[in-house]
Amino acid sequence: MNPSNFLYIKAIRRQPLERTPIWMMRQAGRYLPEYRALRAKHDFLTMCKTPELAAEVTLQPIRRFGLDAAILFSDILVIPEAMGQTLTFREKEGPRLEAPLRSEADLQNLTLNGLEEKLNYVARAVRLIRSELNGRTPLIGFSGSPFTLATYMVEGKPSKNFRFIKELVFRQPQFLKTVLSILSEAVVRYLQMQIDAGAQAIQIFDTWGGILPPHLFMEFSGKWMSQIVEKLKPGGVPVTLFSKGGIAPFRLLLDSGADVLGVDWMTDIKEAKELARGAVALQGNLDPTALYGSPEIIKEEVRTILETFAGQSGHVFNLGHGILPDIPLDNVYYLVEQVREISSRLQLK
Amino acid sequence: MNPSNFLYIKAIRRQPLERTPIWMMRQAGRYLPEYRALRAKHDFLTMCKTPELAAEVTLQPIRRFGLDAAILFSDILVIPEAMGQTLTFREKEGPRLEAPLRSEADLQNLTLNGLEEKLNYVARAVRLIRSELNGRTPLIGFSGSPFTLATYMVEGKPSKNFRFIKELVFRQPQFLKTVLSILSEAVVRYLQMQIDAGAQAIQIFDTWGGILPPHLFMEFSGKWMSQIVEKLKPGGVPVTLFSKGGIAPFRLLLDSGADVLGVDWMTDIKEAKELARGAVALQGNLDPTALYGSPEIIKEEVRTILETFAGQSGHVFNLGHGILPDIPLDNVYYLVEQVREISSRLQLK
Repeated sequence: MNPSNFLYIKAIRRQPLERTPIWMMRQAGRYLPEYRALRAKHDFLTMCKTPELAAEVTLQPIRRFGLDAAILFSDILVIPEAMGQTLTFREKEGPRLEAPLRSEADLQNLTLNGLEEKLNYVARAVRLIRSELNGRTPLIGFSGSPFTLATYMVEGKPSKNFRFIKELVFRQPQFLKTVLSILSEAVVRYLQMQIDAGAQAIQIFDTWGGILPPHLFMEFSGKWMSQIVEKLKPGGVPVTLFSKGGIAPFRLLLDSGADVLGVDWMTDIKEAKELARGAVALQGNLDPTALYGSPEIIKEEVRTILETFAGQSGHVFNLGHGILPDIPLDNVYYLVEQVREISSRLQLK
Repeated sequence: MNPSNFLYIKAIRRQPLERTPIWMMRQAGRYLPEYRALRAKHDFLTMCKTPELAAEVTLQPIRRFGLDAAILFSDILVIPEAMGQTLTFREKEGPRLEAPLRSEADLQNLTLNGLEEKLNYVARAVRLIRSELNGRTPLIGFSGSPFTLATYMVEGKPSKNFRFIKELVFRQPQFLKTVLSILSEAVVRYLQMQIDAGAQAIQIFDTWGGILPPHLFMEFSGKWMSQIVEKLKPGGVPVTLFSKGGIAPFRLLLDSGADVLGVDWMTDIKEAKELARGAVALQGNLDPTALYGSPEIIKEEVRTILETFAGQSGHVFNLGHGILPDIPLDNVYYLVEQVREISSRLQLK
């Protein structure tokens, strides 16, 4: 299919649509039995690094639900790993980066040299997925934002209070900006590699930008994402920025140059739409825990979101955060069906 | 001192002030060596339940920093415990409530009978603290909000995704409202007991209201807090509502009837002030992690907050969330000093 005919791309370009496209953050993941079956045989990082496995996992939710976009199966922490930090995933503990980045001296152990070669397995996965999708579904590539990558690299392991990254914000802001500048270069090179390999859209996940007070958000997170959008523009693929943290980061990203802004479930999507004034497409924002709910309430929540955009293109349906591992599959089928059914009556022009 | 002469009370009533009052959420806590010394001898719950120990801990930060308000040392989970759930605190794990409340049947094990008698140790602590403060510093009593208490009671232990409470929101909303109604009665009775014992102001902590999408916030959290404020009004003491979760819950609470709204660090305090239009006093909102910072940056952050209110009373300085256990004491001294010094030049009328 000509990429410009994909529902996902048409929604981003705010062109007339027969219905609202839907994909789900973390759609290639543990809530799927076929994912768990594969994962039982391979560890998580091996799955990220083996193009055939990454491609298989990327395709699983497309086969099952016929979603309107595929998103590369990978992990945002492959960048810090390629830069020299040892990455491990422990059961029930989340990711760990050894030798956390806390000072100028620690920077000596990290390098951008050969980044594309080290991450070539991602480019291979992208090519393989594109070939298997065979033009039926668009493929989204992704990266973490510089601030989000820095947070993981500085904390080293899952953190409650973000003590170390916040200490840099409030004690060594110049050093942190040096780090963010290096990571911005890494992200641009990584995303360009994905685009060159065939990614037809990009999403930048800013999972931790929202831990910044709003008056510091642009300085430490938003500005760097905006620069990345600018540098990727010649690539011509649409870019989505998704900062978790409610309406404050959303509002600050309106002028970022992004084609799409992700809307988390802590944000009122009606307010987001009013603020966007049709100048940027929106993606979101069903509370991921609503999928624990009853069909009646899921339907009501879906309808509320979709009807916000009645009569108007520019909306990609998604969750307000990643799908949770213990969501009942029946509810996912029901969600996809309801999004299609309800939105097909909304005359999206 | 006549209570109406306390800086804290004058700020709430938006009367002229010589400087901005300051207290800190969780000021009676682990960052203080004298707290840790006492805690080494007694477990946490014993400290809450022994009026002499609770009073001692309440007074520690007042003695050390001369803060402008004392807040009762206790825990919001003494209500579920008095209702019949077994409460334990495990090292590094946080609180646990045995036999989590998940269904109508579980409600049979809970009761409001004799609530005041069971919580009489809190009333005794309040009387003791008032006597020891001897009119020099006002005493704030507190409770968790109904939704926050419900979250702990339903989850049973610290939760990442709030699976069980969210499942009630999206699957059994009527049952959850029954629970919230019972908890609202408990909170009113508990706070009235504190007021009768001598609490000169009240704060309701809505730690978890922000996990609700904004369009459900009032229905499951805000509305119940507003009802409590209404019922406490005859008591005549000022009530502060503090919902963590950024500007969305803040905005929804503007018409709650509260005298003061707490502002968390994810909220721009300038925006909060504009929205409040002088109709409600504000409390906040330094990022608690700023206290890991350098003196220069702490000062800059403090100044930014204080100058928002230049020329105008109606602001109580506080952190945007509780003080963290590993904050250097020197930074707390510096904070208190800077708040006093900077605000004394701001002509707060």
